[in-house]
Amino acid sequence: MSLPYGRVYNFSAGPGAIPVPVLEEARDNMMNYQGCGVGVMEMSHRGKVYTEIAANADKYVRQLMGIPDNYKVLFLHGGASLQFTMLAMNFMNGGQADYVTTGTWGKKAIEAGGLHGIATAIFDAKATGYDNAPAFGDLNHTPGAKYCHFTMNETIQGVDFLGDPPADGNDWICDMSSCIASREFDVSRYAMIYAGAQKNLGPAGTCLVILREDMLDRVPSGLPPMLDYKVAVENDWMYNTPSTWSVYVCSLVFKHWIDFGGLSAVQKYNENKAAHIYTAIDGSAGFFKGHAQFNNRSLMNISFTLPDEDLTQKFLSESKAAGFHELKGHRSVGGCRASIYNAFPAEGCVELAKFMGEFAKANG
Amino acid sequence: MSLPYGRVYNFSAGPGAIPVPVLEEARDNMMNYQGCGVGVMEMSHRGKVYTEIAANADKYVRQLMGIPDNYKVLFLHGGASLQFTMLAMNFMNGGQADYVTTGTWGKKAIEAGGLHGIATAIFDAKATGYDNAPAFGDLNHTPGAKYCHFTMNETIQGVDFLGDPPADGNDWICDMSSCIASREFDVSRYAMIYAGAQKNLGPAGTCLVILREDMLDRVPSGLPPMLDYKVAVENDWMYNTPSTWSVYVCSLVFKHWIDFGGLSAVQKYNENKAAHIYTAIDGSAGFFKGHAQFNNRSLMNISFTLPDEDLTQKFLSESKAAGFHELKGHRSVGGCRASIYNAFPAEGCVELAKFMGEFAKANG
Repeated sequence: MSLPYGRVYNFSAGPGAIPVPVLEEARDNMMNYQGCGVGVMEMSHRGKVYTEIAANADKYVRQLMGIPDNYKVLFLHGGASLQFTMLAMNFMNGGQADYVTTGTWGKKAIEAGGLHGIATAIFDAKATGYDNAPAFGDLNHTPGAKYCHFTMNETIQGVDFLGDPPADGNDWICDMSSCIASREFDVSRYAMIYAGAQKNLGPAGTCLVILREDMLDRVPSGLPPMLDYKVAVENDWMYNTPSTWSVYVCSLVFKHWIDFGGLSAVQKYNENKAAHIYTAIDGSAGFFKGHAQFNNRSLMNISFTLPDEDLTQKFLSESKAAGFHELKGHRSVGGCRASIYNAFPAEGCVELAKFMGEFAKANG
Repeated sequence: MSLPYGRVYNFSAGPGAIPVPVLEEARDNMMNYQGCGVGVMEMSHRGKVYTEIAANADKYVRQLMGIPDNYKVLFLHGGASLQFTMLAMNFMNGGQADYVTTGTWGKKAIEAGGLHGIATAIFDAKATGYDNAPAFGDLNHTPGAKYCHFTMNETIQGVDFLGDPPADGNDWICDMSSCIASREFDVSRYAMIYAGAQKNLGPAGTCLVILREDMLDRVPSGLPPMLDYKVAVENDWMYNTPSTWSVYVCSLVFKHWIDFGGLSAVQKYNENKAAHIYTAIDGSAGFFKGHAQFNNRSLMNISFTLPDEDLTQKFLSESKAAGFHELKGHRSVGGCRASIYNAFPAEGCVELAKFMGEFAKANG
């Protein structure tokens, strides 16, 4: 196996791989962006050149994700973790809201949200070690809940709902950090979607927020300006200087996947990639065990274990020597995790599956 | 005049110029950082390689700015504007605090801070159009004020205190966004210093916070985790994924100025740069007028006006054609502004001064 620029297969759970042509374009414009005389990192966010970059980011993300006109697009500071607080301050605001907890990030979301009202866990998969997600129709919503929050794909556990919530009148708010743009989805089913950029969209430092505009009517007055969605919308996400470089790279990434064929093509690509690795797990006669239950297997983060810790260490060490980097699982789940975001190349999944098969045979 | 890569003289007030060797190093490591197999934007912030980048950022900023051991260094999300809220939530917390307002950013700081307690403007230069800063010794502090906040250099007005506050027992909190690392300063005089990166430190998307550690004892419990300095310190500013790329570039910038000779050398360089332009103003027989009073003239942002709007437009248009970009002043002050941050080259100041002299002669 041989990758350009001496690059390795990068299974990092985040920040994760960025498409090579995007990196090349960013690199080639570093000193002087399209002949304007300065680099992207060095220009005013209110100047003509950056205004066009920002407009492209908005245009491309709308095109890629099919975002309806009645949704606002924002690129905010603070990652998804600051959204845990902002969405509760803006939309719960001392009232109550429902939370569906299917893993580590969902737990953090309800903990942070609970500081701003009554946050009820209407589902929590703790008892089974966070290995599954509920069917949306099985959830019992609290009467008067302002929204229902869930984490589409749990990065650490590798558990995914694998579908949109129903159009049932609930205001679904979804953290899509680790699966956004990895497959087709229907924005109109959500009151709000947000995603830290550093898995599928670009570099860390910005968070994409897609907000149905009627939600703005609920924002109370007197919020800190940097934490107020109305202020963000009124200022076109430039109340202060945004993470200009991060948004620029995101816009290149959006364009890259549009040119790839859009989310239907991306979905096929990712389903195929994940299938290679899950097939290696399922064909190992129990040597490898997937963490997530079958119906909630993530296409982005594949968490799996080996028979014991010695074999796990041996696998991590031999796989790294073979060019597969960052396969160590999160300590809360243990074992291994292959994060195969959009920009992770398909051949890396084929190669890893082959390596897993050989390793199981030699050590099983 | 001829700059490398077809670059222009970039007087942007922020994001501003970044040293060319820093951009080159960032560019050259874009695809594969020092042979590790992935770029800086694509690696886990908790991995071995990024941990070293983060440790270097801490080491270099401490070395460059002479930060004592009893100060914590943080790289936080949200720019300086989120600090307006955080510092008030953490340190005023329903009590009272003093604010010194010498321009636009100081006004924003007191407005945001006032949501979290009684924020008293013990000085406000509004009456004279924000053209001066007080002597620290002339301020009358409110008994029981938790801190005294001021903006060292007002980016828009070009007004600078040009010195540290006294060691008088007051807890001085300072927004140094647009002058940090532009000259020598004594960190020990401050309870907290903060600065959005995008003027003198690197790309937008991270905010440097330098915090005297005893201040942490005052942080109330129950703050949103992303807005709690104790959480930030306990997690080595990685409670969530930081702006990894921005911090990386900042670390290169810190190292660049250390190698330049440290802040004493930077200060001489900047004093010399600013002197060229102020001399052009003062030598124009009143054709150009500086906005700031003489004793508060910023070394970083030189705001000045011309006799009328037609001449201002003519100056902006002819200067741009001559390769001097982004000289338009902020609409709240009008006229022109030359922002000459650390990375702005000295020869650009010499050339602009010459151009100003010729323009005044031809149009005066």
